[in-house]
Amino acid sequence: MSIDNKIKVGILGASGYTGADLVRLAAAHPHMELSVLTANSHAGKKYAEVYPHLGAMNLPDLITIDQADWSQLDVIFCGLPHGTTQKIVASLPKHVKVIDLSADFRLRNTDTYKEWYGHDHFAPQLQTKAVYGLPEHYREQIKKADLVACPGCYPTAALLMLIPLLKAKLLDINSIIIDAKSGLTGAGRGLKQNTLFAEAGEGFSVYGVAGHRHAPEIEQELSVAQGDDVMVSFTPHLIPMNRGEFVSTYANLAAGASITDIRQVLNDTYRDEPFVRLLEEGAGIGTQYVRGSNQCLLSAHADRVPGRVLLFSTLDNLVKGSSGQAIQNMNLMFGFEETLGLNQQPMFP
Amino acid sequence: MSIDNKIKVGILGASGYTGADLVRLAAAHPHMELSVLTANSHAGKKYAEVYPHLGAMNLPDLITIDQADWSQLDVIFCGLPHGTTQKIVASLPKHVKVIDLSADFRLRNTDTYKEWYGHDHFAPQLQTKAVYGLPEHYREQIKKADLVACPGCYPTAALLMLIPLLKAKLLDINSIIIDAKSGLTGAGRGLKQNTLFAEAGEGFSVYGVAGHRHAPEIEQELSVAQGDDVMVSFTPHLIPMNRGEFVSTYANLAAGASITDIRQVLNDTYRDEPFVRLLEEGAGIGTQYVRGSNQCLLSAHADRVPGRVLLFSTLDNLVKGSSGQAIQNMNLMFGFEETLGLNQQPMFP
Amino acid sequence: MSIDNKIKVGILGASGYTGADLVRLAAAHPHMELSVLTANSHAGKKYAEVYPHLGAMNLPDLITIDQADWSQLDVIFCGLPHGTTQKIVASLPKHVKVIDLSADFRLRNTDTYKEWYGHDHFAPQLQTKAVYGLPEHYREQIKKADLVACPGCYPTAALLMLIPLLKAKLLDINSIIIDAKSGLTGAGRGLKQNTLFAEAGEGFSVYGVAGHRHAPEIEQELSVAQGDDVMVSFTPHLIPMNRGEFVSTYANLAAGASITDIRQVLNDTYRDEPFVRLLEEGAGIGTQYVRGSNQCLLSAHADRVPGRVLLFSTLDNLVKGSSGQAIQNMNLMFGFEETLGLNQQPMFP
Amino acid sequence: MSIDNKIKVGILGASGYTGADLVRLAAAHPHMELSVLTANSHAGKKYAEVYPHLGAMNLPDLITIDQADWSQLDVIFCGLPHGTTQKIVASLPKHVKVIDLSADFRLRNTDTYKEWYGHDHFAPQLQTKAVYGLPEHYREQIKKADLVACPGCYPTAALLMLIPLLKAKLLDINSIIIDAKSGLTGAGRGLKQNTLFAEAGEGFSVYGVAGHRHAPEIEQELSVAQGDDVMVSFTPHLIPMNRGEFVSTYANLAAGASITDIRQVLNDTYRDEPFVRLLEEGAGIGTQYVRGSNQCLLSAHADRVPGRVLLFSTLDNLVKGSSGQAIQNMNLMFGFEETLGLNQQPMFP
Repeated sequence: MSIDNKIKVGILGASGYTGADLVRLAAAHPHMELSVLTANSHAGKKYAEVYPHLGAMNLPDLITIDQADWSQLDVIFCGLPHGTTQKIVASLPKHVKVIDLSADFRLRNTDTYKEWYGHDHFAPQLQTKAVYGLPEHYREQIKKADLVACPGCYPTAALLMLIPLLKAKLLDINSIIIDAKSGLTGAGRGLKQNTLFAEAGEGFSVYGVAGHRHAPEIEQELSVAQGDDVMVSFTPHLIPMNRGEFVSTYANLAAGASITDIRQVLNDTYRDEPFVRLLEEGAGIGTQYVRGSNQCLLSAHADRVPGRVLLFSTLDNLVKGSSGQAIQNMNLMFGFEETLGLNQQPMFP
Repeated sequence: MSIDNKIKVGILGASGYTGADLVRLAAAHPHMELSVLTANSHAGKKYAEVYPHLGAMNLPDLITIDQADWSQLDVIFCGLPHGTTQKIVASLPKHVKVIDLSADFRLRNTDTYKEWYGHDHFAPQLQTKAVYGLPEHYREQIKKADLVACPGCYPTAALLMLIPLLKAKLLDINSIIIDAKSGLTGAGRGLKQNTLFAEAGEGFSVYGVAGHRHAPEIEQELSVAQGDDVMVSFTPHLIPMNRGEFVSTYANLAAGASITDIRQVLNDTYRDEPFVRLLEEGAGIGTQYVRGSNQCLLSAHADRVPGRVLLFSTLDNLVKGSSGQAIQNMNLMFGFEETLGLNQQPMFP
Repeated sequence: MSIDNKIKVGILGASGYTGADLVRLAAAHPHMELSVLTANSHAGKKYAEVYPHLGAMNLPDLITIDQADWSQLDVIFCGLPHGTTQKIVASLPKHVKVIDLSADFRLRNTDTYKEWYGHDHFAPQLQTKAVYGLPEHYREQIKKADLVACPGCYPTAALLMLIPLLKAKLLDINSIIIDAKSGLTGAGRGLKQNTLFAEAGEGFSVYGVAGHRHAPEIEQELSVAQGDDVMVSFTPHLIPMNRGEFVSTYANLAAGASITDIRQVLNDTYRDEPFVRLLEEGAGIGTQYVRGSNQCLLSAHADRVPGRVLLFSTLDNLVKGSSGQAIQNMNLMFGFEETLGLNQQPMFP
Repeated sequence: MSIDNKIKVGILGASGYTGADLVRLAAAHPHMELSVLTANSHAGKKYAEVYPHLGAMNLPDLITIDQADWSQLDVIFCGLPHGTTQKIVASLPKHVKVIDLSADFRLRNTDTYKEWYGHDHFAPQLQTKAVYGLPEHYREQIKKADLVACPGCYPTAALLMLIPLLKAKLLDINSIIIDAKSGLTGAGRGLKQNTLFAEAGEGFSVYGVAGHRHAPEIEQELSVAQGDDVMVSFTPHLIPMNRGEFVSTYANLAAGASITDIRQVLNDTYRDEPFVRLLEEGAGIGTQYVRGSNQCLLSAHADRVPGRVLLFSTLDNLVKGSSGQAIQNMNLMFGFEETLGLNQQPMFP
């Protein structure tokens, strides 16, 4: 840490939306000094050329990964394409802590990784050291970790709802159906026809049918929670808006369980959490109530169909679903107050 | 029918969005003459004052229902608040056919009606005469009907998918979960805070949790199809866009059934239908591909979870989900070609 | 013309948005048979693979331009990148009429063309034969033309307002300021970062400052109307929506002219036009009232600043601003009723 | 000020969007304690019932204005309908400073007020004490003020561009044309048909033609800057998005002036300002680059038309155009650092 109590931070892959939101949030963090910003295809540019909205900040110019001087850094955030981070992390000096926003270290089982990502894992030894960066459920491990794998955006929303319920054995694990919806930022800044405004605007569509890579990640963590193999239906959809993610989960109650139990367990789990909140019955839930913030809202209801529950969770995919949660992890890893830099209230409208 | 081969048409409640879309579609129909347009709160106004986009049409001014001269009309479309239509229809001359877009005659069981709409049915004897206006499944009855109750928008999308599958006994009827999403026009033109642009824009939310009135309507028709009582989870959400509805249905296969059976039955059912189409595997499905048209698209997939299927249907809530289907019914009732006036292709982008 | 009274139509560059809207509109035209659809980069595909919303139509597969058999065609619509059409048109059989939607034949002065498009004109002899395809002002020439250059979308909206006023010498031609706004379809289907949903959504920006290629086109036609050189400020902006164009024009009245004169001239000019309409004072004007239609709305007002007028025009950039106007031109060129296939009313909401 | 260095703050009319954004921003301000929140029609409710997105904050319940205890307050922000604030402010204890977000004290000439607002001013003696709250141009007066009238959103964007240019006599004051565009939050939370999502979505329209109340406010301040009567064309439009305002100003240069002078003056004026920034030539400018922040961006260009300039300014109407600027004023009035609580970077996408 520098003499002004700041840690030196690098962001690898700073030209993506998660990179930009890390920079935005870092501006409000008293102990983060952005020392290195990499973006191979934009190296040499000012950051404001790539993200004009941050032109008022005083930031280092973009460089390539090869140009980065790791020795002065305390921590790096990696927002790189999958498969890439594994190689880079393996080559870093030991003192640099790593917070990975890609999928590279989320799956503990390297066979599962290979099945879903199409190639062998390049750093299986690091895989075993990586901690799954969901602070509400891995807080103590994260505090001690050198390598944290931040959850995907959908898994964050789904798991914050389901982990406590499966730990408490409240659901029939063969009945879990997750219908997920995300705004367009979830698709990234790459040029794809289906993410053009005129293609996605005024439209709602399904994608990744029966094959989205967040499914095995959700199943991994639910299986841990339940102590048994869990398989879920997971179907993502695209909403014509920028930010926000809404996850509707349907499940049957386990024998003897009730909606009261569900609400009790969620209340007990999150009562003292700064960023997760179970809404009272009757309160509306929507992405507009978390936009731009690190908050995740939960809502649980009995269905008309006896024995079935309706579970809703929502978050901003770029904040609690990505960059905000990454900073929350950083705060834990460096002994800062967990909420530092993350107290921005949601922006509505 | 007039000497120029036109039927004289009245639209009751012409100031709502379904009324406006009826007028828009009628402009392209060779045999519709709009003779009466009522809107009690706007009586005396030119229609273009209420809907400027139709200012190029030559239309009668708006009048109150009391001012309408029924004797000259051949058919009326009713887009009135529930409970209202029942009274008006009961007082009409016998020769006027009625196509109701409200919920007043959809539920055959008047007890169910009372349970969901909060008051006794005002015309139970008409209820028994009403035909459910889903042409693909009630075509012959509609041809002979004097009173047609057009299905709700969500039921249309859900039932076109599920009726053939339940008739063929392909699904476990205890497992059906319907996650539905609609654009804002589904909420109507009334002034409500949650439908303001700034409230709904850039937001996605759930509403009507475990209590939406389209649930009993869906269950009624599914029970008929299955020949047994069917209960479903039905949960609607609000998409930040104008038009379009997307319904994701999750269900377990019945013993012995397969995704191949599902696709086969849907293909067999709709092969010759002008407005319903099963997409090939791998084809994308989204509301933007039906916007403004009377088409309904279906898509069926096996899930990763063994024995479960993923079923998607989409339509324009104001056309196939409402006004377009109403005209399709009118065509059948008057012996016109079923597609007359409804061949507008979807407008994309 | 074929025995069923249909002309055989080719669309070159059918994979762009104007191509798709030509196909959509052609579906409602009784005399158009789509015989050739080209798109070099998609040759061999079904059209529905490129535009799923048109999957219900029976269309020829996409081919390359080289594969096209011109001999059987009566007319081609060209939606190709500028510079391309000039070469192709020059090589066509004489009997094929050409309706060009690109900028290739809009500018009569080939020096101006070179200045704005960066290369010599490839078919200057055709340039002199091309008729500017604004039917309301070049109707008789269009009827006799073999090559029609359809106006740009912005010029259509601006010129329909200004040509009559300049012909009548009602404006100070040194004072004309055009502030134009367009939805994202105006930017085409090409992959560009600034047209991604997440970049353009919830944002409004200016582009092409002091350098948009529609400026010389507007000035050419205004100079003809005025009989003198006219130069205008023209500044386009991007609206976060799909379709629609709104043009706000500010100008000082010529000595002795009044807003009454302005309205009188516009009324006289367009009273009998099927697609252009001057709104009454006090009526609202917005893109939502023309969406999907071939209509152009005009609205004229006195400003608070004495001697200045506020002129608003709006149209759907893909219809009256492009594909619809192209078909309107085709109707004139082939002696069809001018409104054939173009009577779709605007779709609102 | 309380012992924890906080001032006690009241927000009158806290149920409007400006009220909600004041609360949101106050959450990040180290010296603001929200003690009183009034909203007559919602009195008795928790604030989170009215604005669920702020449910994580610990806030006082809503009360009526009559229930407020002024004695303990240091400052009130007034977001009340025009005409109302005048009466309330006149009745307050002297020690309470007032920051008014309504139009009640913006116009120094009470005749002008009457002309535009339709009734006599109710507190003309306070009018003379009110300081116009545009910190970049009235900073010293604001520091000493007890009553600050915050500028309207459009005037803020227009004046930050034009005041320096008129002070420097760089523009022909008879040539100024302001084409302004705003997102829907500018229309407030009241229930109006034209601000429903389905009415405004996918649409762009003009409103307040030749009669918007921000015109006299802009003219008042420009006349002061120029030292002469200035009249401008001012025309607002509605953009289908939530937040953001974009103002395009067209003007002729004064004799002898150049675009270089324009840029020089803007640079000199704002070089050290924390919230206003002249963009470099070639940089893009759009509302998406200021969303959620207190920043205002400026961009100045020579037009193709000789002697004319194109001037663009953009801000978030709810922040620099309203609540953020109000807090900036509060900081000055209480001797806090001017940027306190206002350092949130823009949120993009």
